[in-house]
Amino acid sequence: MITKMHGAGGRLMIEFIKNQILKNIELKKVNGLGLDDLDDAGTIKLDDKHIAFTTDSYTVKPIFFPGGDIGRLAVSGTVNDLSVVGAKPLALSLAFIIPEGYDEEKIERIIKSINKTSKEAEVAIIAGDTKVTDGLDEIIINTSGVGVAEKVIKDSGVKDGDAIIVSGNIAEHGLAILLSREEFEFETNIKSDVAPLNKMIENILDLEISAMKDPTRGGLAEALNELAEKSSVGITIFEDKIPISDEVSSVCEILGLDPLTIANEGKVVIAVDKKDAEECLERLREHPLGKNAEIIGYATKEHKGVLMETGIGKRIIDYPIGDPIPRVC
Amino acid sequence: MITKMHGAGGRLMIEFIKNQILKNIELKKVNGLGLDDLDDAGTIKLDDKHIAFTTDSYTVKPIFFPGGDIGRLAVSGTVNDLSVVGAKPLALSLAFIIPEGYDEEKIERIIKSINKTSKEAEVAIIAGDTKVTDGLDEIIINTSGVGVAEKVIKDSGVKDGDAIIVSGNIAEHGLAILLSREEFEFETNIKSDVAPLNKMIENILDLEISAMKDPTRGGLAEALNELAEKSSVGITIFEDKIPISDEVSSVCEILGLDPLTIANEGKVVIAVDKKDAEECLERLREHPLGKNAEIIGYATKEHKGVLMETGIGKRIIDYPIGDPIPRVC
Repeated sequence: MITKMHGAGGRLMIEFIKNQILKNIELKKVNGLGLDDLDDAGTIKLDDKHIAFTTDSYTVKPIFFPGGDIGRLAVSGTVNDLSVVGAKPLALSLAFIIPEGYDEEKIERIIKSINKTSKEAEVAIIAGDTKVTDGLDEIIINTSGVGVAEKVIKDSGVKDGDAIIVSGNIAEHGLAILLSREEFEFETNIKSDVAPLNKMIENILDLEISAMKDPTRGGLAEALNELAEKSSVGITIFEDKIPISDEVSSVCEILGLDPLTIANEGKVVIAVDKKDAEECLERLREHPLGKNAEIIGYATKEHKGVLMETGIGKRIIDYPIGDPIPRVC
Repeated sequence: MITKMHGAGGRLMIEFIKNQILKNIELKKVNGLGLDDLDDAGTIKLDDKHIAFTTDSYTVKPIFFPGGDIGRLAVSGTVNDLSVVGAKPLALSLAFIIPEGYDEEKIERIIKSINKTSKEAEVAIIAGDTKVTDGLDEIIINTSGVGVAEKVIKDSGVKDGDAIIVSGNIAEHGLAILLSREEFEFETNIKSDVAPLNKMIENILDLEISAMKDPTRGGLAEALNELAEKSSVGITIFEDKIPISDEVSSVCEILGLDPLTIANEGKVVIAVDKKDAEECLERLREHPLGKNAEIIGYATKEHKGVLMETGIGKRIIDYPIGDPIPRVC
């Protein structure tokens, strides 16, 4: 039986995808990244370019939350998936699945947010679909996207010695969703970080980037483990270098949540050749969405998996079982 | 308030899309077909080629029906949308939205059908997404697709004098869904026609095709009206030329349904220059999916809209308000 944890990123989801989808589908790639790569987008080589292609459905609840809404999320998430494989997004598709009897004003608010985010990212929406169905209690949006890359940046590209950079404060999206869903006895200013990262990422594509990933479901822990495993390297990170706001840190402590496993929707993890690390950091920080970027660690052949230096020792950072907060995207 | 008719093709859906989506989205095209064209796919000119891009969500109920299932539908529908703009499908994406507590065996059966149809169409699935959510009573699938076209075939291309061809018997998909949903006092052999048409359509792309459309939601009536309106021509069709099985015809009569308004999922309507009409018909009939193809009429400047010669007079075929059978796809 399928539980929410199967759709929350992490180990259960990957097992489900491997056992069900990858095992049973035979045509899984064209001439580039395909389903088996479990990367952020598939790619197709066409003449001297690569077409990147990705899809995401958005089932977040509530659909309006501090810092964003399902519309902003749907545009940003898909734009970011194209960006982290090194592609410049060309166009998005937009598919609405609307519960019967739904309030048209809510749809209008969502579409206006989609429009605003599409303009911010400078990416057009050129294809769409609308379905209305019963047996559904909240709107669902699917956005797919196509982009074009000169060079495909793969999860499997991390090299021994690469610097590992995170573009800003972690764990804000998932926490904002959780706090807007439950009644807590404290008030916070925590907002989702949801944003399209393509403009910031396009600024660094001429550097020697080895791999990129947006740490969404499963958080930084999931993204780093995937990069390490697919690249057959270890990653060491330093706890005191991980950018996180005091407020997010305190709230995680109070609620007993590990911020490393909480979803982000406006951050990117970058593995970059060490000679370009400082330049990469500087360029990220020049962009408003990258102002809190930090070099948080390095890739190494000396161990497998992800280790975190805590100041008093080393902690193994494993794949989360699933995001501790389901339905965040 | 949104009703099922808003999602059933036809006039209500087009009004909703125009008033809500097209009005509020500003970036709607790149350099080709965009959202405002309301064509079967968007297109992007890239060097000397056109990338076609389309999306569809599938909410059909029941998910298993005579002649097919939601998996076969999800592959075929998206392959066909690429094919009718003149593109060769390159790759699909596959996004599952799964109700919490769903039966894993059903998913396996659907994925096996997706695999079979993907092999039949010879189109790979290179990107995917899985979400699990509560508040949903049946699985939903979104497939998006990318293809490449030498020349884009637009809905607006029908010319005065073109022959209008339908590739086979109409109204089978919608009727099969209806009959599998309700308890009727008669038994039939009616099966959905759901099938990927790309191989059949690739056989005719060197002919002078003016426009193509797959007559899904809203049926042949919807497809012909869209072609006529967008091309600023009239279309005359002959009732006795429309391919339809005796059984479908009888059941429609018993149930008081107009077969022209019922969805198809394995048919294409083609407007072709009259000099190529016989050749086009012949090539379609050579393919198993086109064996019942017929020239059903012609485009004309002598009237607007769609007229049907019935033998005893002319009947105006208007846009349906919505598909008489909702949630067929």
